[in-house]
Amino acid sequence: MTATREEFEARLRQIGADRYHDKHPFHARLHGGQCSPDEVRAWVVNRWYYQSRIPMKDAAFMSRVTDPALRRAWRSRIEDHDGREGNEGGIRRWLRLAEAVGLDPDYVASGEGVMPATRFAVDAYVRFVRDETLLEAIAASLTELFAPKIHAQRIEGLLQHYDFADDSSLSYFRNRLGEAPKDVAFGLQYVLDHADTAEKQDAAAAALTFKTDVLWSQLDALWSAYVEPARIPPGAWRPGQGLLISAEAS
Amino acid sequence: MTATREEFEARLRQIGADRYHDKHPFHARLHGGQCSPDEVRAWVVNRWYYQSRIPMKDAAFMSRVTDPALRRAWRSRIEDHDGREGNEGGIRRWLRLAEAVGLDPDYVASGEGVMPATRFAVDAYVRFVRDETLLEAIAASLTELFAPKIHAQRIEGLLQHYDFADDSSLSYFRNRLGEAPKDVAFGLQYVLDHADTAEKQDAAAAALTFKTDVLWSQLDALWSAYVEPARIPPGAWRPGQGLLISAEAS
Repeated sequence: MTATREEFEARLRQIGADRYHDKHPFHARLHGGQCSPDEVRAWVVNRWYYQSRIPMKDAAFMSRVTDPALRRAWRSRIEDHDGREGNEGGIRRWLRLAEAVGLDPDYVASGEGVMPATRFAVDAYVRFVRDETLLEAIAASLTELFAPKIHAQRIEGLLQHYDFADDSSLSYFRNRLGEAPKDVAFGLQYVLDHADTAEKQDAAAAALTFKTDVLWSQLDALWSAYVEPARIPPGAWRPGQGLLISAEAS
Repeated sequence: MTATREEFEARLRQIGADRYHDKHPFHARLHGGQCSPDEVRAWVVNRWYYQSRIPMKDAAFMSRVTDPALRRAWRSRIEDHDGREGNEGGIRRWLRLAEAVGLDPDYVASGEGVMPATRFAVDAYVRFVRDETLLEAIAASLTELFAPKIHAQRIEGLLQHYDFADDSSLSYFRNRLGEAPKDVAFGLQYVLDHADTAEKQDAAAAALTFKTDVLWSQLDALWSAYVEPARIPPGAWRPGQGLLISAEAS
C-alpha cells in the first residue's frame, strides 16, 4: 500500500536513525579525540576519494536528466565541490584539511594510498547513480538529511581535541553546514513528489539504505586497516607515507 | 609517424573542410531562402533534439573527468545551454526560434515530432562521449572550430530571406558566435597537447570525423523526409502539427 507523504518521509528518516554512519564507532573515536594522528590521516586519505567522486557522480546524474530546470537545480552541487569565482570549493577545502594534518596535499589528491575497499564502495555509488532511476539516484543523495548533525558534532569534537583543527582546516565542514540543507530540501521534495506508488517508495527507501551502506562500509574498512586489527591492505597508505616535508622533519 | 603539432592541426581542419555540414545542400537551401516555412519548422523541430542533448553530453563528459580543473573549464558549456543568472541559455533561445517560426515551444520541447534518424545520430554522439577516451570526446567537440562561419552565414541568410528572422529569434546563433570560439580554443589546445602519438592523433581525427557524420546525417534525414522525396517517417512531425494557435489561425 502506498504510504502517505508524511509516513514515507518518516520511513526515510528512520533509515538514517538506524543506519547513518554517525553511529559508526570510528566517528565516536574521531570526534571524541581518541584517534591517533595516523588514524586521522588515514581517514583524510580515504575520505578524499569519496569527496573527489561526488562531482563526477553529480555529473553522471545530470547526464541522464532531460529537464533543463532539474539540471540547473542540480548544477550547484558540482560548483560547491569544484569551486567557482569567490568559492574555492569543497575539494580544495578537503586538501587544506589534509595539509593541516601533515599530509602532502598532492599525495592525497593522487589517490595513491586509498584502500581498495574505499574505491569499491565509492565507485559502486557512482555506478548506482549512472544506472538506476533518477528517483533512486536522488533518494540515495538524501543521506544529506542526516549530515548537518554529524558535521556540527565533528567541528566541535575536532576543535576540542586536535591541534590541527581551526577555521581554515575545518572549513570544509562549515561550508557543508550551509550547502547540504539547500541540496537536501530540493532532493527530499523531489523524492516525496515522485515516489507516488508503493513500489517507488520501496525503491527510494532501498536506494537510501544502499547509500548508508556505502558510507558505513568505508568506516568499517578504515577501522579494520588502521584501528583493529590494524591490518593495512597491500598498497594502501601506511603511516609515514605522503607526509609534508615539514611534518616529516618535526 | 607522429605528425607535428602544426601538421596535426592542419589535418583536423581539413576534416572540417571536407566533411562539415556547412557543405550540406540543406544548409544552402536554408540560408539561401529556398526553404518553405514547413521545411524550416522541420529543421527547428529536429535540431532541437541535438540542442537538448548537448548539456547531457557535456555532463556525461564531466562524469568521467577526475581533474577538478578540467571539470571547471568544461562546466560553462552546460551553463551556456541550460542558462544561468542573467543568461537564459541556448535551449530557451532555441525555443524562441521555434515560436518565431510558428511552432508551439512546448510541442518542440516535448521532442515528440523528432525523427528516429535524428535520435539515433544524436544519441550515438552522447554514447560516444560517455564511452570513448576523454581525448576522443574532446576531439569530437572540435566541430565547433567550423561553427562560427556557418552561424554568421545563417544569421545573414535568415535575416535576408525570412520574415521570422530578427534579433530575438536568431539570438541562439548570435550567442554561439561568442561562446563557440572560447570553448573550441580550450578543446583544440587540449587535443593538440594530448594527442602525442600517431595512434592518438588517428583516434582524435576519427572522433572528429565521426562527429561530422553525426551532423551530416541529421541533414540527410531532414532532406529525405521533408524535401526530396519528402517521405516523412512514421511518427515524425508533419506540417500542421504542433503549431501555435495564432499560426494555425493565420
